[in-house]
Formats: sequence, C-alpha cells, structure tokens
Amino acid sequence: MTATPEVSASVDPNVLTAVLDGKWAGVRRAIRAEMADTRFRDACDLDVEQHRAQVLDQLHELARSGRPRLGFSPEYGGGGDIGGSLTSFEMLAFGDLSLMVKAGVQWGLFGGAVQLLGTAEHHERYLRPIMDLELPGCFAMTETGHGSDVQHLRTTATYDPGTQEFVINTPDQAARKDYIGNAARDGRMAVVFAQLITEGGSRGVHAFLVPIRDERGRPCAGVRISDCGRKAGLNGVDNGRLVFDEVRVPRTALLNQYGDVAPDGTYSSPIDSDNRRFFTMLGTLIRGRVSVAGSAGSATKRALAIAVRYGETRRQFWHPDGHEVAILDYLAHQRCLLPALATSYALHFAQEELVDALDELQSGGSYDEHRQRELESRAAGIKAVATWHATSTIQAAREACGGAGYLAENLLPVLKADTDVFTTFEGDNTVLLQLVAKGLLTSYRDHFEDLGTMATARFVAEQFVGAVIERTAARKVIERLVDAAPGRDDEDALFDRGWQLKLFEDREEHLLDGVARRLRRAASDDTDPFRVFNDAQDHVLHAARAHIDRVVLEAFVAGIDRCGDAGARALLERVCDLYVMANVEADRAWFLEHGRLSASRAKAVVAAVNDLCQELRPQARTLVDAFAIPEQFLAAPMLSEEP
Amino acid sequence: MTATPEVSASVDPNVLTAVLDGKWAGVRRAIRAEMADTRFRDACDLDVEQHRAQVLDQLHELARSGRPRLGFSPEYGGGGDIGGSLTSFEMLAFGDLSLMVKAGVQWGLFGGAVQLLGTAEHHERYLRPIMDLELPGCFAMTETGHGSDVQHLRTTATYDPGTQEFVINTPDQAARKDYIGNAARDGRMAVVFAQLITEGGSRGVHAFLVPIRDERGRPCAGVRISDCGRKAGLNGVDNGRLVFDEVRVPRTALLNQYGDVAPDGTYSSPIDSDNRRFFTMLGTLIRGRVSVAGSAGSATKRALAIAVRYGETRRQFWHPDGHEVAILDYLAHQRCLLPALATSYALHFAQEELVDALDELQSGGSYDEHRQRELESRAAGIKAVATWHATSTIQAAREACGGAGYLAENLLPVLKADTDVFTTFEGDNTVLLQLVAKGLLTSYRDHFEDLGTMATARFVAEQFVGAVIERTAARKVIERLVDAAPGRDDEDALFDRGWQLKLFEDREEHLLDGVARRLRRAASDDTDPFRVFNDAQDHVLHAARAHIDRVVLEAFVAGIDRCGDAGARALLERVCDLYVMANVEADRAWFLEHGRLSASRAKAVVAAVNDLCQELRPQARTLVDAFAIPEQFLAAPMLSEEP
Repeated sequence: MTATPEVSASVDPNVLTAVLDGKWAGVRRAIRAEMADTRFRDACDLDVEQHRAQVLDQLHELARSGRPRLGFSPEYGGGGDIGGSLTSFEMLAFGDLSLMVKAGVQWGLFGGAVQLLGTAEHHERYLRPIMDLELPGCFAMTETGHGSDVQHLRTTATYDPGTQEFVINTPDQAARKDYIGNAARDGRMAVVFAQLITEGGSRGVHAFLVPIRDERGRPCAGVRISDCGRKAGLNGVDNGRLVFDEVRVPRTALLNQYGDVAPDGTYSSPIDSDNRRFFTMLGTLIRGRVSVAGSAGSATKRALAIAVRYGETRRQFWHPDGHEVAILDYLAHQRCLLPALATSYALHFAQEELVDALDELQSGGSYDEHRQRELESRAAGIKAVATWHATSTIQAAREACGGAGYLAENLLPVLKADTDVFTTFEGDNTVLLQLVAKGLLTSYRDHFEDLGTMATARFVAEQFVGAVIERTAARKVIERLVDAAPGRDDEDALFDRGWQLKLFEDREEHLLDGVARRLRRAASDDTDPFRVFNDAQDHVLHAARAHIDRVVLEAFVAGIDRCGDAGARALLERVCDLYVMANVEADRAWFLEHGRLSASRAKAVVAAVNDLCQELRPQARTLVDAFAIPEQFLAAPMLSEEP
Repeated sequence: MTATPEVSASVDPNVLTAVLDGKWAGVRRAIRAEMADTRFRDACDLDVEQHRAQVLDQLHELARSGRPRLGFSPEYGGGGDIGGSLTSFEMLAFGDLSLMVKAGVQWGLFGGAVQLLGTAEHHERYLRPIMDLELPGCFAMTETGHGSDVQHLRTTATYDPGTQEFVINTPDQAARKDYIGNAARDGRMAVVFAQLITEGGSRGVHAFLVPIRDERGRPCAGVRISDCGRKAGLNGVDNGRLVFDEVRVPRTALLNQYGDVAPDGTYSSPIDSDNRRFFTMLGTLIRGRVSVAGSAGSATKRALAIAVRYGETRRQFWHPDGHEVAILDYLAHQRCLLPALATSYALHFAQEELVDALDELQSGGSYDEHRQRELESRAAGIKAVATWHATSTIQAAREACGGAGYLAENLLPVLKADTDVFTTFEGDNTVLLQLVAKGLLTSYRDHFEDLGTMATARFVAEQFVGAVIERTAARKVIERLVDAAPGRDDEDALFDRGWQLKLFEDREEHLLDGVARRLRRAASDDTDPFRVFNDAQDHVLHAARAHIDRVVLEAFVAGIDRCGDAGARALLERVCDLYVMANVEADRAWFLEHGRLSASRAKAVVAAVNDLCQELRPQARTLVDAFAIPEQFLAAPMLSEEP
C-alpha cells in the first residue's frame, strides 16, 4: 500500500532535533540553554503592570546577552546574521510570547526600520543604543482608522522650509496611532509613518523618527500617549496610542533611504513612482512577518507537546482487557492532534527555507527585485497559514486537555490568548493571502500598487499568461519525484510522493488559471469591476492557499531529502504522508468536483488519515520531544499529577 | 432559481424578535429589562477576587428578584416553570458568563440535584435556602482522574450501621473533586457523587449532601478545600478542589430518590440494575446541558452582533467609485460571519424546541422513558453542536474585528475566553456525540450502560435494524415538504426545502446504517472489539452530527412555519437556505463521495453560499438587532469611535 519504508519503533528524538535544527542549530542550542534559566519564566498570576515590568527586565537581560545584535550590520557592532536573528525570535517564542513580541518591536520593527529605511547618520547615532536597549522604541504605523490599508494612513508630516523641520500631525481621532507596542509605558522614540507633504503636495507614506518621551519618561510636548489597556493576551507588552499635535522634528528625522527632502523642500527619491517606493519600503517589513510565522510555529509546537504528553498519561473509560485507555489511543483524539502535528513539521521546514532564502537575499549585496517580491509573497503566505494553524491547533490542544486545559496553571489558556492576534498583526491573514495571489497572478512584476482590487484586475487582464509553478526548494529532488510519479489512476499512487507533489501543483495551477480567467472579465466587461473581484474573493484566497500548501510540501520533501539518518527519515516520510493526506482530505471536495479524485480515491484518503494517525500514535511523543522545548515551558501541573 | 419569495428591503427587527422570543417571550422581556440595569454590568478590569465578589453580589441580586425560583416545585415556593427557568439561564448569558455559570451551579446543578435526586425531607429542609441563596452550594461530581467517565468516580461513601452515618472519603489525589464551581470561596454545602458502599459491596455512584464550610465560612472538619486559581475565563466563578478525609454525614444525607439505605445498611432501589440507576440519575443532568447550549447561543449572538456592527462601520480600501468599502461588503468577510449567523438562527429554534419538549416532559406527571432518552440524547447533541459553533464563531468574530477585537474593552476577548470551556463542561463534546450515536443505534432502548465502547458494539449487533428517522418538530409540515420535494436530479431542487430536508435525512440514514454495519463486526469477528469501535469513531461522530443537523433543520423549518409575518418569514426562509447551503458545503465531500451530489451540483452549492451571503448582507444588521441584546453588553468603544 505504501511507497515508504516501515517506521521503526524507536527513533531517538535527538536525531530528529538535529534534523529540525538545521542551518542555525548553534543559535537554537544557545537560546535553548539561555531560556532554561528561570529568569525567562512565564508570567504566572501577574497583573498587567507586574507582567510589563517582568518583560522589560527580561528584555534588558536579552540585551545584555548581546543576541539582539545578531540581525544588525557588523559596521555598528551587529552580528550580520539575519537568519540567526530570525531564528532567535522563533526560539524566544517557546517562552513568554510577550517577551518575543516586545523584542520584535524593539529590535525587529523599530531597529529594523532604522537600519533598513534610514541612512548612515541614523545608523551611527541610533543603532548602538537600540541594540543595547538604551533607546526603547516603537513602530508607529497602524492607525485607528487604517490597519490593512496602510497606504491611506492619515498622519501628516509637513515640511517647513523656514525652520527645516517636519511638522507631525494627527488630523483626527481615526488617524491616531493605535495598538503601538512599547508606546504605553517604555518607548522613548517612535518610527512614525506619515504622509510626507512638501512643495505643496503629498509624496506618500514615509517614516520619521519622533521622540515621544524625554529621558525621565514624560511624554514630549505635543505628544499625547494613552494606554490600550488589557488585551486578550500579550499583556506584558505595553500597547498604546499616540496622538501628535503639530510636533516638530528636524529634517534629518526622515528615514531617507528611499526618499529625501532637501533643505529647501525639494523631494528626491531613487524610485520615481510613489506607489512603488511605498511598497519597496513596506518590503522591509518582511522580517516581522517571518518572525511572526516562526513564533506561531514555536507556540504551536509547545501546545502540541503539552497536549500529546497529556494524551499519553490521561486515561478514560475501560478497555475490555481491563485497563483504562489513554485518550491518545482514541482515533478521534489522534485526529485532533496528529494531523496538526504533521502540519507543524511541514511548516517548520517551510519556515527554515524561508529564513534561509531571506538570509541569502539580504546578506548578498545585490538587490534582486523578482526574488525580493517572491520572498515577500511567500513570507506573507506562510505567516497566514502558520498563524491560522496556530489558532486552530492551540484551540484543539486546549480542548484535548479538557477541564485541566482550561486552568491557567496548565499553560494552554495563555498560549491561546497570546497567539490569538497573530492572525491579525503584521498583516491581516486574509489581506496577506490576497497579496500572495496578486504576486502569483502578476508574476511579481512591477505594478505593486495598492492592495485594493482594481489594479490587480486590470493588471491580470493585461499580463497574466497562465500559472507558472516556480519551485523553491531543492528543485532537483522535486523534479525527479514528479517525473517518476505514477498516473492519476494508479491504485498505489496515494502514497507516492511524486504523485502527491503533482496533485498539489495541479490544484494550484488550475485555481490560478481560473482566477485569472474571472478577473480578466473585470477589465473587459461593463460590469462593476469591484463586483467581479469581490465575487471571486473566495476563489482568490483558495488559489493563494493552494500555492502556499505546495510551497510547504516542497520544503518538507527537501528537508527529508537532507536527512541522513535512515530511521528519522522513515519517520519523517510518514509524517509527510499524514500532512499530505490531511491536507487533501480537508480540500477533497475540490478534488472531487474537479475530477482530480474519484469517489473511491477520496474515501481512501480519509481512510489513509485514520491509518496514519494510528500508525504514528506510538511516535507522537518522540515527535514532540524532538522540538526540544525547555522543560520549564512544559511544566503544567496536570502532567505531573499522580495517575 | 429559488423557491422562496424575495426578501424585502426592510424587516422590522422587533417583528423578528417576537418570532425568536417564542413561547417564553414574557421571561425573555423581563430579563432583558432587568439586565439593562448596570448592576449586571460586565466585569471590566477586575482582578480575580474583585470579580468573584461582584458576581456574588449579582447572584444575590438575582436571588432577590425571585426568578431563580422559576424552576422549582410550587410546593416549596418555586414557580414550577421549567421552560421559563431554562430560558432565564439562556438570557442571563447575554451578560457576564461568570454570573450565568455561578447561577447555573447554585440553582441548576446544586438545587436541581437536591430537587431531582432528593426526597421530601431534603426538599423541605433545603429548597428554600437554596432558592434564596442562604445556602450556597456545589455540585461535586468531576474528579481529577475522572471527568467523562463518571461511572468510575473513586470517592467513596461507606455506610457505617453502627453510627448510621456515611463516611465520605477521597482515597487518593486522582479522586479529589476538581473544577468544582462555588467551592473555592462561597459554597457551604456540596452534592458529592461517590461510590455507595454498604453491606460489604458497592452499589455504584450516588449523591450525598455534605457540608463543606461552617456558618463562618471555615472549612468543615475533614474537608480540605483548595482553589483552582486563574482560568482562561469565567474568573468570577470560584472553582475549587475538595478532598474528604473520612467525613461523616448522617444516613439522610443520601439523596435517596433512586436508591436508599435502611438504618441497618440494607440497600434498596426502584431500579434494579446499578448501571441503569446510575444513568437515570445522570439523566437529571439534562437541564445543565440544555442551559449550556442556550448560553452558548446567547454568547454567540452577542459576538455576532458586535462583529456585524463593526463590519458595517469599519471601512478599508477604496472602491473605484471613490468611497472606502465597509468590510462587511467583502465576500470573504461575509463568509466569516453570515453562515455563522444563519447557524445561530437555526440553533435558536432547535434550542427553543428542546426547552419546550423538556418542559412538557418534566411538567407532565408520567415518566416516558423513551422520550426521556431521546431528549437526553438531543440535549447532548445540541450542546455539542452549539458550543463548537460558539467556539468557532466567537473566534471568527474576534478576527473579523482585527486588532480592535483583541482589546478587552471591545468585549470579544472575554467572550472567547469565557465560552472556551463550554465544549468541555457538562460533558466533553466528543463523548456527548458518541452518546447521541449510541442512542440512535439502540433506539434509546435500555442498556444505557457505560459510555464505553463494548456495550454499544454488542448491543448494536443484537438490536439494530436500520436507522429510523424520528421527526421531532412540526411533523406534518416536514412531511408535507418532503413529500412534495423534487427528485434528486431536478435542477431547481437546491432551494426546495423538501429536497433539503430529504438530503439531510438521507445523509443521517446512510451514515447510521454504515456505522451499524461496522459495529456488528465487533461482536461477530474475532478481531479486537475495541479496535473495531475505535476505527469507526470518526464515522460514529459524523453520524451523530448528521442527526443533530437534521434535527436542527427541522426545528428551523417548524419555527418558520409558525411565523405569521410575511416579511419576516421571507427573510427567515433565506436565512434557512444559507444555513442549509453552508452546512452542505462544509460536508459536500461526503455528498460527492456517496453520489448524493454531482460535481456540478456541489459547485452550485458553493455558489449558492456566495450568493446568499451577498443577498443577506443588507439584512445582517436587522438579523443581529432582532436578538435584542441589552445595549450595555454591546458597548464596545470600537463601535462608537468616529469614523
């Protein structure tokens, strides 16, 4: 029935850990050791202010470790290791997610903006104090009225040539900066995104360094700061609101990598199109999205590790043999956890590949726009898929632990609450998937205008020639497998990796072609183009999802191909089978509707998920142990109680 | 294309409210008015102890209103209105869910156990102080080691004829009572479920009244009480743990409706079989499950009302016409909220019908075992479906409100956290659905033994003759519609209610027959019967789910049939269409695999969901306003901010 070898009874989790740890194994090991320290403990029964204080202390601890320097240029004392830096955020997310987010705000978003949007003067002046946390900062992009549509932010930065200053202003309530991490309590400075107005016109959104508090922590003149208050989770992060009443900052406060204003007010930029410049600047956000995807992965692994351990020890109802059955022996329980576990493995490899690609691209000197766009799109898509996976899996893990899982002491409630906003921040998932589809439909070419609908529709109409599958991972391995795949009707095909890869490719191509056909109408018909685009929205999202699923599968296949240990490899092959079968099962209506699966083949897919769940059940503990999560983050009392 | 009349542009929400309010409209209106009082405000920014104190105050306020008397016998000052009592719990759930749960513990579980498992002496002595909250109590069933499998609880109550006392004892850590509401802080007495041991043997689980605190609130001798601490939500309820060290209670502490011990230790019961007696006692729990289902419904309505209002006011991205688009105008957003809204309508009618049936059964003097079993099963199934619906819908509502939805002030985080345990308490949903399947497979006949697997398998093998569809709601209407339904291949069938009803019936029958066939093997084969049952578990759960879906649809159809207003009726017909289409869409792989839908018909179902979403979009606000939720529970700042 299966093309892959039998899974042996015992695989050493450490061997699997080495496979998972991959290229940045050193960073992973170092952070694991560091985080085993009780100083990095979870927040337990702290109120909001205590939690914020604890997280700030931990943040200083991190700064002292020097690790936050990893992602910055060596020129200014940084480590120049972008991949290592992203991996360190991912690992941090095994612990209190408030710390990960606060670190992400300080070093990823705030520091990243200064590094990537600023120029030498900004780097010299600010990077060291940012790395050392002497200058805690904010990333003030989102406004109350505009979150997804950041191109239409309403904060203004009007240049005054008389004083050579920018005047930062919040015109109304909807334009206040909202949900800004580090703003309510600790931030001293903010990178503020605002419409740059000079020479009597707007040049679109640019970023400005604006002091928000003085050295004694009092709000600066003209800056009104308020607190977003309690949130569902992440209460160790001080999110706040910022309102600017004609705040003046010097001309040099403009982070002028992609656009500058001369003393007399003349605007200049290496990129002519306002839209294109804006999206090039936004492209620098990619690290944030990559980090959220990685962190979602770590939190999901932690929830799965807890739930699998509980499922092995918790027993309920009697077997006819006279023993109480471990709940993980029930098929329904396996179905809750094991396909999710397989998906976590798949996403792990996709994440690693994404980090690797980004590291390669940003470490190399030359700018490859096509690759940059492809990476932005992939980061957006993997962020969406990984965070939705986190939301549903952590929910399933909570339910799988019953009433015990509802108690704060057993960790799952906090994981659920903290990760809940991951589907929203760094880009709403639905908007991100549309971005993915747009990139695919336009082959990442130019015209990266707004995230709205019309530009896409028109552009697709003009340029789309058909879905082109660009393979990202270990191209040769994938091609070899696909070429050797049996035909669609072959009875044994289900477990053939090449056949599976082709199935995923084919779904993506078909969906993309269909979307393109529908969108062309938007440009050619008399019908309302918004209507055409909107009517196709579920189709667009499905196409994007199918693309990411294919990218994830290819990464998994490439990861297995790199695995040298035969036992570990055989186990991973099975996990990959479960990932594929569960994915196809969830979408099998589509495969049936489009003649890709017969009814009997579709039923065989459902049966395969059941079989694989039962086959992998004895390996579940090994699979979660391989994540090598520091034990203090798994210390749920329900796991240590006597039976 | 459609068999139902056009939906008119404006339906008065008040007319819809009257339809929804149904039989207990008076109770609903009274509680709405009462809860509009700020004394019943939500908990905002309270710590655990403040929240507990506020909820206790509110509970006393409720007691003073006299409403908790509704469900008790008039003989002892009660209102004798079981349906009204259940409806009042449902309405209470528009507000702070901690209050609903605490009220449910006091009057539903604790008071209900005394009323239904006790006899005259208990009633005379305890019902009044329970109703008036002079005697706050607990319902101590769940133990750390046994939650779902309550038949195997390990607390013992050993009769000592020498002193005519029961000795209540917790043999080990796993047998401590856990998650017990009202235990950590306020309870004075507990109904403790324990294995009754007399005459040297065990007679199964019985309930005992055990004082746990004295009049000054100190734990009684031999009772160790601890606090479960912070939970994901419901922190206004003081859940605790109880350990009994050989605590002696008088012989009369046994709630002896279904089993009694004479002074000399002789056991007697009107029900011979220990198993059957136990499940008869458990049957009294049905009110709790009905209340949880209703409360889940109220919380879901509240989340939908908030998200729909936000979706109408929140605008993002520009329409080519030059206005910003309200996010509820996007198809993807509609798909997040409107099918869920339609399902909430469907479940509302199913809930009302369930309450009505229970009221009728329990108010009538005679005991009809078949009807009782059918109701227990239906309550279990609707509880499972309604609470999973709550979990997914409240999650979707949070995501639909983006970052604003993550702030506590905007109410959704609390709703999510509070309802999260609904899928677990009063019966784990997966276990409950198995119970539903078991009832269907055995036609609710006898043998209600354990919830385990073997008894079912054997019994099915002996007795199952084929799925029999018992129609619950407005039998005649349903039959007329089904009889008039067009054939399977009729192009227009999709929107024919009779065809839809037949589709649901047919799915249920086919699934049940299939399960029965598989389970018969468990009894006849040499194979491990646990294995046979376990391999079929997903099939069993699907069958149960299909049954409940059919029951819900029939209730919706019957509810529409009772609606006199033409405009409201036309709107409800469309909402019902959306419920059906979304339900079929989600399960369409099954319909395709089993030849119930052709590929093109299945695609038409997907298209129908899209069309109905867009058609109902203008009615969304009316549909949520019709829930008539007191405004203070919708007062999210994000809804009142200037655009």
